[in-house]
Amino acid sequence: MSSKLRVLIVGGVACGPKTAARLKRLMPEAEITMIERGGVVSYGACGLPYYVEGTFSNINALTHTPAGVSRTPEFFRTWKGFQTLTRTEALSIDRRNKQVHVRHLDSGEEKRLDYDKLVLATGGKAFRPPIPGLDLKHVWFMTHPDDAASLVQTIDQQGLKKAVLVGAGFIGVEMAEALINKGLEVTMVEMMDQIMPGIIDEDIARLSQIHLDDNDVELVLGERVTALEGDDRVQRVVTDRQTLDADLVVIGVGTQPNDRLAREAGLDCDRGITINQYGQTSDPDIYAGGDCVSNHFINRLVGERLFVPLGSTANKHGRVIANHIAGRPTPFSGIGCSSIVRAFEFTIGRTGLTEGMARDMHLDIAVTTWSGQDKPHYMEGSRLFVIKMIADRRDRKVLGVQVAGMGDGAKRLDAAAAAIYFGATLDQLADVDFCYAPPYSPPIDPLAVCAHVLINKLDGLAAGIGPLQAKDQMDTSECLLLDVRIEDEAKMEWIPHSRMVHIPLDQLRTRFDELPRDLPILTYCKVSMRGYEAQRILNAQGFDNVKFIEGGVGAWPFETAMPGL
Amino acid sequence: MSSKLRVLIVGGVACGPKTAARLKRLMPEAEITMIERGGVVSYGACGLPYYVEGTFSNINALTHTPAGVSRTPEFFRTWKGFQTLTRTEALSIDRRNKQVHVRHLDSGEEKRLDYDKLVLATGGKAFRPPIPGLDLKHVWFMTHPDDAASLVQTIDQQGLKKAVLVGAGFIGVEMAEALINKGLEVTMVEMMDQIMPGIIDEDIARLSQIHLDDNDVELVLGERVTALEGDDRVQRVVTDRQTLDADLVVIGVGTQPNDRLAREAGLDCDRGITINQYGQTSDPDIYAGGDCVSNHFINRLVGERLFVPLGSTANKHGRVIANHIAGRPTPFSGIGCSSIVRAFEFTIGRTGLTEGMARDMHLDIAVTTWSGQDKPHYMEGSRLFVIKMIADRRDRKVLGVQVAGMGDGAKRLDAAAAAIYFGATLDQLADVDFCYAPPYSPPIDPLAVCAHVLINKLDGLAAGIGPLQAKDQMDTSECLLLDVRIEDEAKMEWIPHSRMVHIPLDQLRTRFDELPRDLPILTYCKVSMRGYEAQRILNAQGFDNVKFIEGGVGAWPFETAMPGL
Repeated sequence: MSSKLRVLIVGGVACGPKTAARLKRLMPEAEITMIERGGVVSYGACGLPYYVEGTFSNINALTHTPAGVSRTPEFFRTWKGFQTLTRTEALSIDRRNKQVHVRHLDSGEEKRLDYDKLVLATGGKAFRPPIPGLDLKHVWFMTHPDDAASLVQTIDQQGLKKAVLVGAGFIGVEMAEALINKGLEVTMVEMMDQIMPGIIDEDIARLSQIHLDDNDVELVLGERVTALEGDDRVQRVVTDRQTLDADLVVIGVGTQPNDRLAREAGLDCDRGITINQYGQTSDPDIYAGGDCVSNHFINRLVGERLFVPLGSTANKHGRVIANHIAGRPTPFSGIGCSSIVRAFEFTIGRTGLTEGMARDMHLDIAVTTWSGQDKPHYMEGSRLFVIKMIADRRDRKVLGVQVAGMGDGAKRLDAAAAAIYFGATLDQLADVDFCYAPPYSPPIDPLAVCAHVLINKLDGLAAGIGPLQAKDQMDTSECLLLDVRIEDEAKMEWIPHSRMVHIPLDQLRTRFDELPRDLPILTYCKVSMRGYEAQRILNAQGFDNVKFIEGGVGAWPFETAMPGL
Repeated sequence: MSSKLRVLIVGGVACGPKTAARLKRLMPEAEITMIERGGVVSYGACGLPYYVEGTFSNINALTHTPAGVSRTPEFFRTWKGFQTLTRTEALSIDRRNKQVHVRHLDSGEEKRLDYDKLVLATGGKAFRPPIPGLDLKHVWFMTHPDDAASLVQTIDQQGLKKAVLVGAGFIGVEMAEALINKGLEVTMVEMMDQIMPGIIDEDIARLSQIHLDDNDVELVLGERVTALEGDDRVQRVVTDRQTLDADLVVIGVGTQPNDRLAREAGLDCDRGITINQYGQTSDPDIYAGGDCVSNHFINRLVGERLFVPLGSTANKHGRVIANHIAGRPTPFSGIGCSSIVRAFEFTIGRTGLTEGMARDMHLDIAVTTWSGQDKPHYMEGSRLFVIKMIADRRDRKVLGVQVAGMGDGAKRLDAAAAAIYFGATLDQLADVDFCYAPPYSPPIDPLAVCAHVLINKLDGLAAGIGPLQAKDQMDTSECLLLDVRIEDEAKMEWIPHSRMVHIPLDQLRTRFDELPRDLPILTYCKVSMRGYEAQRILNAQGFDNVKFIEGGVGAWPFETAMPGL
C-alpha cells in the first residue's frame, strides 16, 4: 500500500476538477484520481443556451481552456498532474474497506478503487416530470454539451419552427431567448402563475413577463403539462387546458441532486447530501460538493437546508474540500441565494430572501420597489431598471434584493450580495462609498436610493404602496389615482383607472381643492420620486390617506394606457 | 420673528439642493432659503466631459431633471417648496447674531439674512497653478456648464486642433477622451511620473497609460508646466523641459475647498471645513457638506482627514445634514476613497487604500495583481481586465482594490467597496455569493479569484511577484524568464528578456533538466494561472527560487515583444 494520500473523486464536471486541481497544488504528492461517467470532463453547462443562440459557434469552447486546450484526461494528467478515468461509473461505496466499486461503461470491466479520502461530486440531474412522451424524438433536456449540439443540428437540418419550453425557470428563460434569437416561435409553459417561481417575487416576475412578451415569447402560465404527444417525434404538448403544436420541446422543470451513491452508502442526506462547512458528509472521510449537496443560508437565517445547484457554488465547494483534505481548513459560509439571468435586454436576478420566502418564515419585514435609470439621464446608454428590497423591520437588516430591467442590475446585485453577507442594515448599505462617475452610475447609486426609500418608509415618512397592492386597491375599492408628472409625460403613457386626476407636482400646492378629502389617494409619476413628494405635500395639508405607488410607471407590472389604445 | 425654523443654505450645486429638498420633505413647515453665487443651480458638473465629446448635445441636460424640467429657482419653489436666490454671494457670517451678509452680484444690493441653522455648501474651486498665462484666451477650467459650452463653441467655430491638458487626474483623463473623440490632437502634461497620481498606484497607472497611448493621447509625464504663452490667445505650453504648441489648454490640477467663509468666521478647518459625522462644524448651528469639507475614512484606519471632493459624497452629506436638522440624526460613516473613470474602453478605478497610501501608513500589507476575463471566454463581449488587491497581513482584511481594463471593473469595485465598508477579510470576500450566469461573470467571480491568489500568497503557496518588482528584478539581476503558455500563444506576444525559455506547462513535468537550478526563475503565462501552477510544480521538484509574474501578459504594464518588432 502506498504511503501517499489516495484521493478519489467521483464526478468530473465542476466541483470534481476544481477539487482535484486545487488539491494537487496543495499536496503535489497526493495520488488523485477523478472518475467521470461521461466521455467529456469539466464542461461549462451554463453556456449551453449561448451556444444554441449562436453566441459562439464551436461547442468545444465549453470543454476547452481559455487558451484553447481541450480539457481531456490527458490535459488533466500533463497540465494538472492527476489521473482521470472517463466513461467510468461509480456503482457503490464500500465505506468499511474504503473502496469504490466502478464499472467502465464501454468495456464493462469492473474494479474496486481504494481511497483514503473520497469526494462525491456527482452533480445534479434534470427532473423528469411524470408525464408520457418524454422519450419521443425532439424532446431535449439541456444538461450536457451533446444536448445543445444535437438540438442545434436538428433545428438546422430539419428546419424546426415551433418550440415549446416546459418550465419557466432559468433554463426556460435562457432557452426562450436563445431560440427566439435563432428564429423559432417559442411558447413557454409554466405550471405556476409566474415565471421563475420561487426565484423571484410575483411583481418582478410580472415586469419580466411583459418584456418576454414584447420579445415574442408566448407565455402560458398556470397550466400543467400532462403529456407530450406525437408519432416517433413530438408534435403536441398537452396541458390541462389546451394542446399546443410543437416541433421540439425543451424540458426545464428543475434539477435534482444526484445523491444515489451517498444514500445507498448510508450517508446523511436531506435535499441532497448533507455536508458540514468543510464539505464533509456524515462520514468524515467522504466529502461532497456541487449540485449533489444541500447548503445552508449564509447567516443561518433560513433554518432549513436549501438545494440551489449553481456552478459558482460548486467551484467554492471544490476549494473548501481541497483545503480541508490538505489540512488547511477554510469554512464555507453558505449560499446567499444569489442568481441572475439575462432575458433579452433584461437583467433579472436576486440575492438573499424573496418577499415570499421572508413571509413564509413569518419575518416582520418591510418592502419597497424603486425604479430609475442606472446612469445619469443625460448619458448615452442610461437604462431603466427596478430594484425591490426587503428588510427586517426590527433590526433594519437587508434581507434580500431583486432586480429586473434594462439597466445594470448585475452590479447592484453583487454589491447587495456583499452587504447582505455582512448583515448590512439599510443605513449601512446606503452609506457604502460606491464609485461614482457618469458612465457608471448616478451620484447616489440606485441601491442606496432604494435603501433610502425603505428607510423613509420605516420612519413613517414615505407612505409607499407596492404595485401589486396598489392594483389590488384600485380593483377592489374606491380610490383616486393622482398623476403628478408634467403634461408631456402624462399624455404619453399612464396607469389606467376609473378615477384619475392629473396635477403636475409644481401646481399641486395651489390646486388642493381639486382633490377629495374623503377618498384614498394613490399618487405616482415616472419613477415615484415626485409621487413621494406629492404624498408629503398632501400630508402637510391634512390629506391623511395618501400613498404613492412605488416605482411609478417604471415599475408598473401591468398594462399601461397610451393614446389611441 | 417667525416661529418657524429658518434654514439658510449657501451654495446651490449638489449638497445645497439635496439638503433643502430632503429637509423640506422632513419639515414641510421650515423656511428654507438657498443662495447661489452663479446664475444656475443644481447642475451636474461631472457631466461636462460627456457634453464636450458629444454624448449629449444640449448642455441644458445638466441643469434639467430627467423629466426635462429646468432646475430654476421657480422649479425649486413650486416643485420642492423652498426659496432660491441666484447671483447672490455670501460675504460673511455673523455667528453672534446668526446672520449671513449677502450681496446681489447684479444689483449690488447687500442685506443680512437670518438663520437658525446655516448650511455651508460652498463647494470646491479649481486650483490655479502659480504660472503666468492663465488668463490668456482659450484656457479653460472645467467646473461649470458655461466652461464646457464655451469650449465646444470655440472649438467648433475656430476649428481648434491642438489641445494641451495640464494635469492627468480625473478631469485630464476624461477630457483627453472627450477631445480625442471630438477629433482633436491631445497632449496631457503631468508633473508626476504617472497619470492619476495619488488615486491609483504606478502599475495600474502604467497599464492605463498604454491604453491612452493606444488611443493617440500624447502623454508627457514628469514635467512641470511653467508658463502658458501667446498673444491674447494661448499658443504654447512651456514645461521645464520643452515647449508644446497649443490651440487650447484645459487645466485640471486639482480642486480646493471653498472654505473662505468658514475660515473667516472662525470655524475649525483642516483640509476643508472640519465636520462631525452629522455634518456639523465647530459651531453646532452651522453645518457644512460637499466639496468644501474634509472627511474621515470609513473605518478610521486613516487617521488624518481627507479632502476628496465627489458628487456622490456631497449628496450623502445633504441627506445627513437634513436628517440632523430635522431631529432624525443618521451618522455618516465616512468616505471609502472610491473613484472611477472611463478612459476610452478602459475602466480605471479604486476603492479603499492604494498600495502607496498603505505603505506610507507603515501598514504590514500583502498585495497581488490578477488579470483575466470578466465573463467566460466563450461569451461575446468577454473582456480582459486587471484587479490589484491590498490586504493587511495580520488580520487579512481587505484594504483596497484597484481595477484597470476593458472588462467590467465597475461591478467589482462596488462589491469591493461594500466588503471593505464591513471590514471584510480576504476569505470573506471570496465567500460572498456573487451572482453567476455567463452573460455576467465566470463561475468564480474575478474579485473572489483575486482574493484567492492573495490568500495563497499569504499562505506561502503562491510565490507571486508584482509586475513592477519583476521588471526591476529582470533589469537589475540575473534571472530566467519561463513562459509556460502553449506554442500559439507564445509566438504572438511575449515579455522580452535576455534569458527566456519557453516550455508549455504540459511538458514541464518532463523537461526539468532544461532549467538551471542556480538562477532565480520567473514564470508567466497569459494571466499567470499557469504561471502559478508552474511555480508549484517546480517547487515540488526542488527549485526553490521560483516566482510567477502576477497577472502575466494581461497585467504587464511595460512593452511586450511581438514577431517582427
